[in-house]
Amino acid sequence: MKALGIHLLIELWSCNRQKIDNLDYLEKIMVQGAEVAGATVLRTAFQDFNPQGVSGVVVIAESHLTIHTWPELGYAAVDIFTCGAKVDPWKAAGFLKQELEAEEAQVRDFQRGIPTARDEEHESYEIFDKAACGDPHR
Amino acid sequence: MKALGIHLLIELWSCNRQKIDNLDYLEKIMVQGAEVAGATVLRTAFQDFNPQGVSGVVVIAESHLTIHTWPELGYAAVDIFTCGAKVDPWKAAGFLKQELEAEEAQVRDFQRGIPTARDEEHESYEIFDKAACGDPHR
Repeated sequence: MKALGIHLLIELWSCNRQKIDNLDYLEKIMVQGAEVAGATVLRTAFQDFNPQGVSGVVVIAESHLTIHTWPELGYAAVDIFTCGAKVDPWKAAGFLKQELEAEEAQVRDFQRGIPTARDEEHESYEIFDKAACGDPHR
Repeated sequence: MKALGIHLLIELWSCNRQKIDNLDYLEKIMVQGAEVAGATVLRTAFQDFNPQGVSGVVVIAESHLTIHTWPELGYAAVDIFTCGAKVDPWKAAGFLKQELEAEEAQVRDFQRGIPTARDEEHESYEIFDKAACGDPHR
């Protein structure tokens, strides 16, 4: 695998139900989470729902963070996709778990990228390509 | 598992390199992909990069679609997360693979939601909760 990025699928259970129903708060901590990971925030798009729940995305120079919440269940589905070696998505995952007061969490992590012939030989993954992330046109 | 949604991680390889470097085109087909799946589009946020590549997200009432492209490698990383039983993320996946002329693709699918006691007994997943998606505040 020519690994261009790592993608975390994060289940946060038994969260603070007020916090995960608050759009402004969620947008703030998702941006902070990106910054904690060392990412560069480019755009955000958040939406709240009736009777409850929020969806939001943060586009970063290194890919994205998203969150979808079910306050009635205390559940938040987060995913964090980062490319490049300078950003640490696990730091954002830990920050968000703490901020949302999740009592339980599960993280599944996946490599994203291009398969190589070496994959069939069960070789180790290549180091992230530092050139994989461009600079945003502003 | 009380499955609230399904999340597809989609690798698209050997794509049309011009198409995956065209922000306006990608935004159009990502919105169309959401519609093909039966989703309701709420917000979009797209960004292009220097020297190449595009990142974009489409927030839908049923969660999100995202895309990140590496035109120099012919590679696009797509993910589609949908909640509720009315939306079919596989339709969007097939549509995007075709539109981007990907010669090869890989889809990994994951349940998102709340674990139940039954999970330990290896029972089957519950049917999606139709009440899991709210109505957007506009």
